[in-house]
Amino acid sequence: MAIMAVLGSGIMATALSFPMSENGHEVRLVGTHLDREIIDSIQKTGIHPNLGLKVNPGVSAYQLEDAPTAFAGADVVMCGVNSFGIEWIAEQFKTLLRPGQKLLCITKGMRADADGTLHLLPEIIQNALPKELVEQVSWNAVVGPSIAGEVAVHHDTAVVFCGHNQDDLEYLADLFRTDYYHVWTSLDFVGHETGAATKNIYAFAAGFAAGLLKAQGKENDRYVMYNYGSAIFAQGQKEVRQFVTFMGGIPETADGLGGVGDMFVTSMGGRNVKAGTFVGQGIPFSQVRSVHMKGVTLEGVAAISVIGKALRALTSRGVIQESDFPLCRFLYSVVEEDAPLKMPWDKFFADLR
Amino acid sequence: MAIMAVLGSGIMATALSFPMSENGHEVRLVGTHLDREIIDSIQKTGIHPNLGLKVNPGVSAYQLEDAPTAFAGADVVMCGVNSFGIEWIAEQFKTLLRPGQKLLCITKGMRADADGTLHLLPEIIQNALPKELVEQVSWNAVVGPSIAGEVAVHHDTAVVFCGHNQDDLEYLADLFRTDYYHVWTSLDFVGHETGAATKNIYAFAAGFAAGLLKAQGKENDRYVMYNYGSAIFAQGQKEVRQFVTFMGGIPETADGLGGVGDMFVTSMGGRNVKAGTFVGQGIPFSQVRSVHMKGVTLEGVAAISVIGKALRALTSRGVIQESDFPLCRFLYSVVEEDAPLKMPWDKFFADLR
Repeated sequence: MAIMAVLGSGIMATALSFPMSENGHEVRLVGTHLDREIIDSIQKTGIHPNLGLKVNPGVSAYQLEDAPTAFAGADVVMCGVNSFGIEWIAEQFKTLLRPGQKLLCITKGMRADADGTLHLLPEIIQNALPKELVEQVSWNAVVGPSIAGEVAVHHDTAVVFCGHNQDDLEYLADLFRTDYYHVWTSLDFVGHETGAATKNIYAFAAGFAAGLLKAQGKENDRYVMYNYGSAIFAQGQKEVRQFVTFMGGIPETADGLGGVGDMFVTSMGGRNVKAGTFVGQGIPFSQVRSVHMKGVTLEGVAAISVIGKALRALTSRGVIQESDFPLCRFLYSVVEEDAPLKMPWDKFFADLR
Repeated sequence: MAIMAVLGSGIMATALSFPMSENGHEVRLVGTHLDREIIDSIQKTGIHPNLGLKVNPGVSAYQLEDAPTAFAGADVVMCGVNSFGIEWIAEQFKTLLRPGQKLLCITKGMRADADGTLHLLPEIIQNALPKELVEQVSWNAVVGPSIAGEVAVHHDTAVVFCGHNQDDLEYLADLFRTDYYHVWTSLDFVGHETGAATKNIYAFAAGFAAGLLKAQGKENDRYVMYNYGSAIFAQGQKEVRQFVTFMGGIPETADGLGGVGDMFVTSMGGRNVKAGTFVGQGIPFSQVRSVHMKGVTLEGVAAISVIGKALRALTSRGVIQESDFPLCRFLYSVVEEDAPLKMPWDKFFADLR
């Protein structure tokens, strides 16, 4: 039996407790300071309120102050916060992480330096830890199309565990594999983490079509706007592939679960798509953010802000071309400069042969 | 002003008359023997009954016996039938095609020899014509995510015109380009035609999830099966790319409008998805074909039958490996052998590094 301690008790982290606990392992969910009510609920009733489901036997919940107890003796440690919490969790891990533990990260996103240099999130954690500890911990991540609740209710889900050591990956994969949770492994850590971070950018654009139709009173028409959405999806796929290559990953990683598969699931719905729908209706994004979706966590929009800004810096340094990543750049102008929704079609598919 | 004669007056062929006629060109729609009522309707009322829309001024309709009149003096000729009609149209073109005409093919699919050698559909037409005429006609095709009605009602649509001569492609693209119909050009004719033909295979599988949910009475549950659908989409994308490469196209063509974009739109609905949904419900495909969707044209299923059979022949000849195209092979066993819906997950993503 293995023990996993999870910091962050959101729906995705909690969903992953299902396959692991069903394999006879112990999962300790530790809430952040924002998760007090979730932990309370699980401790009293077993129910995760946002997921709307009861956790399995073998899964226990801890408030943040009890984190040291939960992490003591854990074989596996999960970074289970969202991208906004990565600097916070890095601080926590300074005292919680122990040599020999295998870390599994489900947080997706990027950070950028002022000169545009992009960093994957596990790197942000590593930078906050003593160098020795970084080398004594195994760094891995879960990537692939996963709607949390679907995992929890045992619907088939296919993911990739990526990392730097094949033995560690096999060990981790074996903890989680069930007849519905299908796990592949890959040593292309950078490629997979880049795909997972950048696909969120394009999910925002997946909402535009519904908004455009709504603005014209055509949302119930016989003909909707799948052609529009598919063209954006195709350009998004091209840019994800370019990001994977740019960051040093294997280009083909963008084709699989961590790229196009993940982008597909993210485009099917969720908060970023909803935010994009408001923009499609003609509402400037600053207003979407401050009124229509006030206080809502929008990881895709955050990715656009961070990465879009970095692209400008990278361009001015001559690292990339002005013509690279036209859709991401356009989305940045929508999100940060309230640009209207005039899709720059003529800049797309420039590399077509 | 240019003149285009179209043989086949289905919804896609007719939809493409919209951008071209709006650019001031003349379009002559010629019905097949199966299109009598469509042509009658357009001649009398201007309305295409299946599309549910009135064609533009500048678009005229001809019954099959008037095809010679329609084709006389046409600059552009469109092959507008579906894949089942390709041998028929090849016969018609023997007498209708003239040297110097530019052919634009919208029919997608493949044919295979007994030894598994695969052929794109324009090749089937070419094989029926005198060699001299083949060389005197320009061979081009339209590829990309296009729901016909969306083109007709002026929703943004992005496509690729592919062919063998850049000047011809530019000429054709200019006839069609409008502010909503965005046309790229590509000399990767084989890659684009292969992507367009093989993406239909995977649209059938896109219907499984809805059927599986329905069979369990879960179609209105909070958690559906997007993870499942996304994993299949990702494996489908990998196989489309492999088909493009195998046929001698540029692998990257599978990423763009003619590959992943086209697969996305095809997965959003339609007859093949509906057929897949019945299979998801647990109905053997032979029964879907003979009862639930009797008489319905299923181009995706036809592609599975033709290509899946060819894969077996190619494997026995040692041209491809047993492990190649596992999803297409599985779909073949579903369609031709009534195999139950046990997804062979362990065969997917075998090339992951």
